[in-house]
Amino acid sequence: MNIIDFKWPKGFQSGAVHAGFKSSGQLDMCWLAANHPCAAAGVYTKNQFQAAPVQVTKHTIDQTHQLQAVVVNSGNANSFTGDEGIQNVHRETEMVGQKLGIDPNLIGVASTGIIGKQLEMDVFENGLNQLSLSDSTAAPEAIITTDTTSKKICVETTIDGQLVTVTGFAKGSGMIHPNMGTTLSFISTDANIDGATLQAILSAKIVNSFNQITVDGCMSTNDMVIAMASGDANNHPLTNQHPEFAEFVAAFDHVLTGLAKMVASDGEGASKLIEADVFHAASQVDANHVAKAIVGSNLIKAMIFGEDANWGRIVQALGQTEAKISLDHLAISIENTAIIKDSQIQTFDMDALRKQLASDNINITVDLAAGDYSGVAWGCDLTYKYVEINAAYEE
Amino acid sequence: MNIIDFKWPKGFQSGAVHAGFKSSGQLDMCWLAANHPCAAAGVYTKNQFQAAPVQVTKHTIDQTHQLQAVVVNSGNANSFTGDEGIQNVHRETEMVGQKLGIDPNLIGVASTGIIGKQLEMDVFENGLNQLSLSDSTAAPEAIITTDTTSKKICVETTIDGQLVTVTGFAKGSGMIHPNMGTTLSFISTDANIDGATLQAILSAKIVNSFNQITVDGCMSTNDMVIAMASGDANNHPLTNQHPEFAEFVAAFDHVLTGLAKMVASDGEGASKLIEADVFHAASQVDANHVAKAIVGSNLIKAMIFGEDANWGRIVQALGQTEAKISLDHLAISIENTAIIKDSQIQTFDMDALRKQLASDNINITVDLAAGDYSGVAWGCDLTYKYVEINAAYEE
Repeated sequence: MNIIDFKWPKGFQSGAVHAGFKSSGQLDMCWLAANHPCAAAGVYTKNQFQAAPVQVTKHTIDQTHQLQAVVVNSGNANSFTGDEGIQNVHRETEMVGQKLGIDPNLIGVASTGIIGKQLEMDVFENGLNQLSLSDSTAAPEAIITTDTTSKKICVETTIDGQLVTVTGFAKGSGMIHPNMGTTLSFISTDANIDGATLQAILSAKIVNSFNQITVDGCMSTNDMVIAMASGDANNHPLTNQHPEFAEFVAAFDHVLTGLAKMVASDGEGASKLIEADVFHAASQVDANHVAKAIVGSNLIKAMIFGEDANWGRIVQALGQTEAKISLDHLAISIENTAIIKDSQIQTFDMDALRKQLASDNINITVDLAAGDYSGVAWGCDLTYKYVEINAAYEE
Repeated sequence: MNIIDFKWPKGFQSGAVHAGFKSSGQLDMCWLAANHPCAAAGVYTKNQFQAAPVQVTKHTIDQTHQLQAVVVNSGNANSFTGDEGIQNVHRETEMVGQKLGIDPNLIGVASTGIIGKQLEMDVFENGLNQLSLSDSTAAPEAIITTDTTSKKICVETTIDGQLVTVTGFAKGSGMIHPNMGTTLSFISTDANIDGATLQAILSAKIVNSFNQITVDGCMSTNDMVIAMASGDANNHPLTNQHPEFAEFVAAFDHVLTGLAKMVASDGEGASKLIEADVFHAASQVDANHVAKAIVGSNLIKAMIFGEDANWGRIVQALGQTEAKISLDHLAISIENTAIIKDSQIQTFDMDALRKQLASDNINITVDLAAGDYSGVAWGCDLTYKYVEINAAYEE
């Protein structure tokens, strides 16, 4: 598997424009389309108020596990918009279908932005009139909201001697605390794989990637990850019997995990990425939960922003969970400096540790000494900027 | 029931000094003692790493449901301090017992401050040498850490024709997300009531008072509420058969709830108190959980700081819970302005609402239209100051 410059897999084209959802004049609408129906899979937010595009797109993918195109806008989430919101999504699929000559049932829709405002259909139409399909890779720029950078990643691998590309892009920043779905993210590949298998991989791999990041503990109404596979790489169909199945899964997982870390790293106002590694947990649930509790603690997040090593807050966060923890053999390290070993406070150079905390990537490692499971989670520091961004958020 | 100026109930005396735990020279040690053993009750943090004073004091109260004195320090939490920490608590009870001529098994100990540092016993001894018992009401000042004000409340009621006083004080500010226990809080009363009944009232009333506040979602290792009843009011023993039992419970609850709101209102960096009232929930658990989810959302907290009415974040927070919510009859109001009614967005004056958000007390009301239960929770806004305080916390 090689990480390569961002490009679309064989069979896909894209485009991005400023439709007018954002007053700033930035790109706010894009699409990604294949030249024939693709195998498709999706995972969606568990928020009870799933936004209209999430409801409709989930229904579409559930029916046939196929999609040929997705259209995405930022600047308006089309969330909590009732029947009118649902009808607008259907109008979007019809309009895009007509323009591309594709069955509306093969079109996915995603939206992100402010909640509780009907989608401006005239703006959507304006955007659609300008959209075209090409090798343009501007789409990742068009789905961001308070993000400071676009999130995109591309890996290449060889299966049956054929070059297979897996490409993903995502948005992130705020209201990030995914559960079984996530922030908007779109994975495309030219691998030959059926929808059910693609769904199985996506559902399995989302658990340890996007579901292990948090920015602010707030689960969005619009989270959705969609994967599309064109099959244009011409490998033999990928099933779990395929000798190179694991290689494809690894490539797919690398894209998912890479995007998840980019989203955490660029959380609203973030200046640092925090990674928590948990070892020797009694179960996978414990391992994942403890890791996420560490990166989700406001006190730890603020401490990392301040480049302070107030490690008692890690103890506090561990104790707040119901995970099994050895009372005699707990170990905690920050940036490879051992703070606690066998549940005893270690002697360490606090000034040297503080200097290490100036890094942009902070690692916290915890050994629960309670079993054989490991887990990782990613988050970001809590900064003045986060408060500033969220004290006045308008688009 | 009358709210009166702060004083100790009959039978209690107190004192507060600067022992030296805090380098600032502020009061950092206090005690509260009765002239004979009192009925006692306690609730304690559910954090897995209960601090040494929590473990020892819980054991003491569990044995006999009696206490005669409590001693409290700020500036050091005596938490995650192992066997030495436990031994230090026993030394504290012996030293206090000797000085007051009280059985060490009748002395409760509480500590608050930084985690992971052994208690400086020479500092404790220095404080103890200065401590005396009087009508001084300085104790609430001696237990604060990053609090901006002390939290204290006193109510008076009449039972069997006898004046009964219930007095409470608490600390709060950060690491506030109590579960079954809370921030440090001490309730004293001269009511005649046995320890088991007092425990039953405390355990019942903690659920809708301290357990319904959150500042930052972080459950402390040191949370503890202790109640002591001297019996000096000379009422007939209060049991649930007593005709004025409800009156006492109401007075006790007023003290608990009043302190809880003070702690929320003075959360670290807070500029506003947020109250969430939830009506027509399908269960008490749903009602309490939804109310706490609203006041616990970083996005809502930041929006209230910014005096912004981005109400979609309330929808997001509701949807993130697993509470039963009517999809047709949900109602949401902010400061009595109806935003959502029968799940439809209402027309309202956004500028007028923004002006109302300049208030120090913000009310968010949600009607889930799913049952007959109500719940309330209290929190505070998320401010630059919270980040500042927690980016560099040292004592």
